[in-house]
Amino acid sequence: MESEFLAWLQHRVLRTPIAPLGLQDDAALLRLREPDGTVVTTDMLMDGTDFRLGEIDPRRAGRKALAVNLSDLAAMAAKPLAALVSLALPRAGGRALAESLYEGMLPLAAELDVAIVGGDTNSWDGPLVISVTAIGEVGARGPLLRSGGQIGDWILVTGEFGGSILGRHLDFAPRVRESLRLHEAYELHAGMDISDGLTLDLSRMARASNCGAVLDLSQIPVSAAAVRLAERSRDGLTHLDHALGDGEDFELLLAVPPAEARRILRDQPLVVPITAIGQLVAEAGLWQTAGETSRLPLSPQGYEHRLDS
Amino acid sequence: MESEFLAWLQHRVLRTPIAPLGLQDDAALLRLREPDGTVVTTDMLMDGTDFRLGEIDPRRAGRKALAVNLSDLAAMAAKPLAALVSLALPRAGGRALAESLYEGMLPLAAELDVAIVGGDTNSWDGPLVISVTAIGEVGARGPLLRSGGQIGDWILVTGEFGGSILGRHLDFAPRVRESLRLHEAYELHAGMDISDGLTLDLSRMARASNCGAVLDLSQIPVSAAAVRLAERSRDGLTHLDHALGDGEDFELLLAVPPAEARRILRDQPLVVPITAIGQLVAEAGLWQTAGETSRLPLSPQGYEHRLDS
Repeated sequence: MESEFLAWLQHRVLRTPIAPLGLQDDAALLRLREPDGTVVTTDMLMDGTDFRLGEIDPRRAGRKALAVNLSDLAAMAAKPLAALVSLALPRAGGRALAESLYEGMLPLAAELDVAIVGGDTNSWDGPLVISVTAIGEVGARGPLLRSGGQIGDWILVTGEFGGSILGRHLDFAPRVRESLRLHEAYELHAGMDISDGLTLDLSRMARASNCGAVLDLSQIPVSAAAVRLAERSRDGLTHLDHALGDGEDFELLLAVPPAEARRILRDQPLVVPITAIGQLVAEAGLWQTAGETSRLPLSPQGYEHRLDS
Repeated sequence: MESEFLAWLQHRVLRTPIAPLGLQDDAALLRLREPDGTVVTTDMLMDGTDFRLGEIDPRRAGRKALAVNLSDLAAMAAKPLAALVSLALPRAGGRALAESLYEGMLPLAAELDVAIVGGDTNSWDGPLVISVTAIGEVGARGPLLRSGGQIGDWILVTGEFGGSILGRHLDFAPRVRESLRLHEAYELHAGMDISDGLTLDLSRMARASNCGAVLDLSQIPVSAAAVRLAERSRDGLTHLDHALGDGEDFELLLAVPPAEARRILRDQPLVVPITAIGQLVAEAGLWQTAGETSRLPLSPQGYEHRLDS
């Protein structure tokens, strides 16, 4: 890492008990309290794919790069502790861009007590790439997994869905405190965050849990942005289509035993609303309710990176 | 991550005790044994900067991306445990490239017992970017730091220097076992790996240790590649210049108390030779010996990413 930039950063990234050495060495030493319950995740964001640098304040790109990783920790009900940040910066204006990216990250890191413990800062002739690795710890209840869902579980979600491209995909609040709160106070069977699309991610959770899922489409909390997007664009997609498949909502998707789900819905213990949208069922695949007793197949929609062979 | 590629990878990345859940969830759960001594590092490699994809077998690029991170763990005398791999792949042929990169990484990971526990695989319109995060643990002696050097310590290095661009920068063996062996059997004061250039990295270690360093240039182990490079190119650089400044040698640089250094030199406990090349001194800065009693300033040479403001 460029030594001048490192000096700039070292004054902003304070030493914390979790990383007592600061940024000086080849690697960061971590003082973890839960060695058996350490959780680690990584996400890479690229200019032109995950944000468009020419169109936004770069601080929002930096913030998003950290936030998506914290959302992955929230998905596991892990408390974030530390993060490492690697940058490939375009040569022209790279230093100023690096500072802006960190200015976007550091307030979110401070808000959620995340220490930036290391990284790698490079410049090159390509577009901006940000790779963040986040480390967290799970509590006494262990991690929340995708695979713990059981037939009959209610499917709960936080927040609203669709249209995140209008801005929320950059400025969303990762559901870190919400996830910890729910996992501690209620019996949750399975959980994940919605990054690629509500129906695509739900189909993944159902498959990981060896069951299927049925959605009551009338219950999906549709965001105002999804409505705006449907009105604005001429691609024929409804606001519900946007809610079901846009992705980057970064809300929590949970499978919860019915009695506990009722308790959560009654308590509404979070600042963000929790909604029941369906149920895990024995029959594999994704379904929608059709009347009282029957169901129709539902095609999972969402975003997948496609790799050409 | 693309689900087909994930399926391909999951068969090659076996479940290990350290990461009992496999690759299915939003983050990897780690079972670490040393709560106080976890070490984490990250390095990002870009096509055109750290390798030229058009000119090499891509497996070598993948291997290098893991190896540089393992070298950073070796620098801290940490035993590698796990790694996460994020890729930004060019769209055309991305799937085949991803497989090649992993085919380069997995044998090295297997050789050094490193579990690939997670990652993020993307495609885009830019050149290949590989970001690896490696996690390790330190033993009872704690980590080896840059800042532990003391005035009078001998400066020892493993291996030979210079000319790594001719091939060794891709195929080097990270000094993982060597570092663990030395740190366990001898009293080392400070250590790091040589990534940016022997003199530049030594000047960093000396500064971190609040002292200076004097090199005996006649003792620098110069590689055959440095000699070939000096003969071949017309830039006026000698083989010694290459040894002092090329970087990417990924050898160990150690500060060791004199009696212990003599013991190491006598024992030569590694498969790779260990050489004494100088000493830490009270006077700040970097120096070269000149006769028996005097010294001359020496300018640190090496590679630094420069960030334009």
